[in-house]
Amino acid sequence: METETATAAEAAVDQNDVRWLADEEQCAWRTYLDVNRLLTYQMEKDLQPFGLTMNDYEILVNLSEAAEKRLRMSDLASATLQSKSRLSHQITRMENAGLVRRENCESDRRGLYAVLTDDGMSTMRRVAPHHVDSVRRHFIDLLTPQQLADLRTAMKPVADNLRQVRGRG
Amino acid sequence: METETATAAEAAVDQNDVRWLADEEQCAWRTYLDVNRLLTYQMEKDLQPFGLTMNDYEILVNLSEAAEKRLRMSDLASATLQSKSRLSHQITRMENAGLVRRENCESDRRGLYAVLTDDGMSTMRRVAPHHVDSVRRHFIDLLTPQQLADLRTAMKPVADNLRQVRGRG
Repeated sequence: METETATAAEAAVDQNDVRWLADEEQCAWRTYLDVNRLLTYQMEKDLQPFGLTMNDYEILVNLSEAAEKRLRMSDLASATLQSKSRLSHQITRMENAGLVRRENCESDRRGLYAVLTDDGMSTMRRVAPHHVDSVRRHFIDLLTPQQLADLRTAMKPVADNLRQVRGRG
Repeated sequence: METETATAAEAAVDQNDVRWLADEEQCAWRTYLDVNRLLTYQMEKDLQPFGLTMNDYEILVNLSEAAEKRLRMSDLASATLQSKSRLSHQITRMENAGLVRRENCESDRRGLYAVLTDDGMSTMRRVAPHHVDSVRRHFIDLLTPQQLADLRTAMKPVADNLRQVRGRG
């Protein structure tokens, strides 16, 4: 399964100089990964009866909060952290379901927009209470306000750094 | 995109009784989701030169730590939090790449096993330093030891609860 770029990647780390994870680090990392995966599974499962994925839902939220309920495709891709090609496929699927439509903006050459339809808006309004309920039961309500604040403080620099790294790549 | 079970899901939450997220909760949740998505993207990207996905890597780790480097398929599915059918597809792919093989255990009727091959073991040994380096640079080293300990304390009950919920479903 290996590609020729493996050699380049390998050159970047000296095998004799590896800082393996200490037990506490390993425990924290694995717990984090477990929550990551379990929570993704549960959120997807709770949206499934409505025919939505987490990605669909996030697109509906982003569009519903935007001025005139529309966003340039490239901005929507940045906001939802997706590649443009993947987003395009997804918008096609959501367009077929009547939740969004594409629109060209004549006065703006860069301008291919995704626009929330009335059906999309009412779907979001209908699903939101259930999604929030799921987020509360499986995450928010299991943490104290202090833990939530600490989590945000800890994760913010991680997110900022990853965004920078991704922007460079 | 909707299915008929939406009505059942809807009945479970009273629209007048929704506890929307407060600003601090919303901020913490979105930051968490961003890290979740950005980190998954970055980990996958850093494994790509070696032709591995995060799921592949986790399977290699689980098998390498198991007695005789083998695990019953159902145990491997639990350990990696995957459905049995999805795991089966993935093991086929990894089998074709020579990293694992399937084995029937004659003395155990339940026993279809996944076994790490020598190639799989050496692949894991070769990739591990790079993966650890990536985990450190993008996550572990950006948190203080106290933040890591707090993260684990906060996330452990979330993981435990989600595992229970998943077991019931």
